[in-house]
Amino acid sequence: MSELLNQHACFGGEQRFYQHDSSAIGLPMKFSVYLPPEASGKKLPVLFYLAGLTCTEETFMTKAGAQRVASELGIILVAPDTSPRGANVPGETDSWDFGAGAGFYLDATEAPWSTHYRMHSYLLELHALVLDLLPADPARVGIFGHSMGGHGALVMALRHPELFRSVSAFAPIAAPSRCPWGVKAFGGYLGPDESTWQQYDASALMAKQETAPFPDGILIDQGLGDKFLPEQLRPEAFEGACARIGQPLTLRRQPGYDHGYYFISTFVEDHLRFHSRQLG
Amino acid sequence: MSELLNQHACFGGEQRFYQHDSSAIGLPMKFSVYLPPEASGKKLPVLFYLAGLTCTEETFMTKAGAQRVASELGIILVAPDTSPRGANVPGETDSWDFGAGAGFYLDATEAPWSTHYRMHSYLLELHALVLDLLPADPARVGIFGHSMGGHGALVMALRHPELFRSVSAFAPIAAPSRCPWGVKAFGGYLGPDESTWQQYDASALMAKQETAPFPDGILIDQGLGDKFLPEQLRPEAFEGACARIGQPLTLRRQPGYDHGYYFISTFVEDHLRFHSRQLG
Repeated sequence: MSELLNQHACFGGEQRFYQHDSSAIGLPMKFSVYLPPEASGKKLPVLFYLAGLTCTEETFMTKAGAQRVASELGIILVAPDTSPRGANVPGETDSWDFGAGAGFYLDATEAPWSTHYRMHSYLLELHALVLDLLPADPARVGIFGHSMGGHGALVMALRHPELFRSVSAFAPIAAPSRCPWGVKAFGGYLGPDESTWQQYDASALMAKQETAPFPDGILIDQGLGDKFLPEQLRPEAFEGACARIGQPLTLRRQPGYDHGYYFISTFVEDHLRFHSRQLG
Repeated sequence: MSELLNQHACFGGEQRFYQHDSSAIGLPMKFSVYLPPEASGKKLPVLFYLAGLTCTEETFMTKAGAQRVASELGIILVAPDTSPRGANVPGETDSWDFGAGAGFYLDATEAPWSTHYRMHSYLLELHALVLDLLPADPARVGIFGHSMGGHGALVMALRHPELFRSVSAFAPIAAPSRCPWGVKAFGGYLGPDESTWQQYDASALMAKQETAPFPDGILIDQGLGDKFLPEQLRPEAFEGACARIGQPLTLRRQPGYDHGYYFISTFVEDHLRFHSRQLG
């Protein structure tokens, strides 16, 4: 049962904020929805957005300026929170890059995180919930995200291509097994056995594909003024994996752009149009 | 001397945040600038945006999605903070609608506010500073704002039509002498003599005009789902004053829209195009 917390008219549609009791997480979770002006009875495409470190279900909807284009294209936007809230794990709020606000879209296996930090399962739960709650077409669902959420989007799409037909990312953490953010998160949530990390590493997952899972292409925008680029993001690892298995990738290196929402807002229209073309 | 605190590439231009020592306020003040991609050496039109209660110089730039249109039209956007910060007036942060974040764009005359709370003079200082700092055309400057900032924009334009050639507002506090927010602010900053309030009341100022000060029209958007509309905003008072002196006004009553930035983002493109047409 989802509770509608509030809603706001926006570009002829509705910006909504929901809360529900998540079975995957075992706690209440919030998510946001932008519902475009609807043709009555018509099923619409859905685009999930996964946000980055420290963000919430609200960040994308307030800062990215995507509703204008979603309204025009008739796309439902859905943004979950970035971690469980109120799990009360000791140390949960000590770091900005681990714990609350930093769930990394994975199912933790290490205690005490494994009780609630199950964001991978949560996204599958939310996918089903959204299809039930909204006038959404299950055959036309895409996913994108930013930074930690770009990692999440690529991983979800590669592991569940039957659920997500299109995928793109802004400045994704593209090889988390091999960057400080990822090593800290995967070590903490999954433990020291690095073989278990590969299921949440987009570059590793892509390298294992036998044929291109998204033959119509994947879109990534990466700012060249992004201070996290050299050490944390490693788009070249994902680019290499795509090239080796023949996955078409448009990796746009944008001179001067940094890691924030001024970058995202500049290119979000391109991403919505990319997904709209693929989702039909 | 203005210090550039940070800048971000955005829609081909630059989102900048500045700090400077304000002589009008007697304290450091921050403001934000969006600089569109420039034709070299060309002077560009400037549009000042005044934000509402509790906001800062950052709010409009992160939430309104205006940079896309400003980039296209070649307009510089400037947004000041909504009050002095760090004035250390006793009780300054006790209310969300008076004191810090609630400067009401006026020069206080009552002690202890009168020392630093001089936002009307500050806007004149900032106007001059911006013309000096940026490639701005002094003959093409407009102003708009939201709620308390809509009040501020209308008042600045009516009192300084030689500085501001175009004016519009989102859900302005249109008759502050006659609403609870305005009575509290004007009483606190200006004292009990209501005759001194009229110089900061857009409806009273308009009623005193002999001819239309903005013959090409004024644009106001007002959401009909705005919970502050009946008691606080009173657009009908401003509408009546405009009608009596023959000032063309386009007051668009938008069904379903509330008082927030989802409303503003929906209509901000119309406002930028309105100003662009008037500023040439």
